[in-house]
Amino acid sequence: MSFFPASLENLIDKFASLPGIGRKSAQRLAFHVLSLPEAEAYSFADAITDARRNVHTCRVCQNLTEGELCSICASDRRDHSTICVVSEPRDVLSIERGREYNGTYHVLHGVLSPMSHVGPDDIRIKELLHRVAEEDVSEVIMATNPDTEGEATAMYLSRLLKPFQIRVTRLAYGIPVGSNLEFADDATLNRAIEGRTEM
Amino acid sequence: MSFFPASLENLIDKFASLPGIGRKSAQRLAFHVLSLPEAEAYSFADAITDARRNVHTCRVCQNLTEGELCSICASDRRDHSTICVVSEPRDVLSIERGREYNGTYHVLHGVLSPMSHVGPDDIRIKELLHRVAEEDVSEVIMATNPDTEGEATAMYLSRLLKPFQIRVTRLAYGIPVGSNLEFADDATLNRAIEGRTEM
Repeated sequence: MSFFPASLENLIDKFASLPGIGRKSAQRLAFHVLSLPEAEAYSFADAITDARRNVHTCRVCQNLTEGELCSICASDRRDHSTICVVSEPRDVLSIERGREYNGTYHVLHGVLSPMSHVGPDDIRIKELLHRVAEEDVSEVIMATNPDTEGEATAMYLSRLLKPFQIRVTRLAYGIPVGSNLEFADDATLNRAIEGRTEM
Repeated sequence: MSFFPASLENLIDKFASLPGIGRKSAQRLAFHVLSLPEAEAYSFADAITDARRNVHTCRVCQNLTEGELCSICASDRRDHSTICVVSEPRDVLSIERGREYNGTYHVLHGVLSPMSHVGPDDIRIKELLHRVAEEDVSEVIMATNPDTEGEATAMYLSRLLKPFQIRVTRLAYGIPVGSNLEFADDATLNRAIEGRTEM
């Protein structure tokens, strides 16, 4: 049953194909776009085309960029001997927000996941090995998510990196700053005790 | 702090300007669009442009259409002497879903709302009066939402329609079919008692 004009139905379909957007939300978004002034609607369309055309991955770290190198890889104020391995571009943003880390990144664009048929060749692993082999790298920090797939990916990579005889580290596990012991789960508390430090 | 390339930031901004989409969701949607095959991303952009260009309001009932008349106004199997007044195009879909109503519609594209500075000239009221004056209309059914603004709009319109000496009706209030009296609110129950019918 389609009561809407074809091009409106088509737009609703496109919105509904986005992750986390159901049919009702897609309708609401499509109606909103139709209600925009013509120039604004067209500039939305242009934003999609431009982003898809101009944004690609950095030749070195695989993060998203419009140039050949991303701003971090191109900067001489960053420590290029340390590489922080993350699974997604948004994770770079999270770590940069802390303003503490001064090394470079490597974005895998995914994690190993046999269930979803994602193997070592589907994520940017060989680019990482190439960097470690060619550049003067002293440490690789694994910053994949602390879930099953993130852990397995970190473990897999650390084995691949063993022959290079560099430091391979993992983000610390423990209780979040400002949280409450009462609400910490058992696994986190156990890890926090295992990883306790001298005061 | 913008760590993403400019055209990606721009796309995130566009998504974030949509109703109900926050900054985090906008990021997720933008990343998804970047991960699409090039042709799919471009066809998303085209869907926006096409919909905005081709969809306009029906000359008669103001519903969205790609032709001069919408399919309902153009049909000779509908009863053109009855007009059901709704506030949004999606309300037409809701009523059509019931497959019971066989008249035509009039889409106001909004409701009167002094708080949001929406007055009688901002919604399609004069088009409705024009129809009632020119066409052979015997009944106008008010099907705006049963909230304060929908009620006020229905009341306002019914007064404007009085001089035409046609039947002006309102959707029945009452308990929803299949619901439970225990969970009905007082206002609804009172309306259901007032509007009781002979068995």
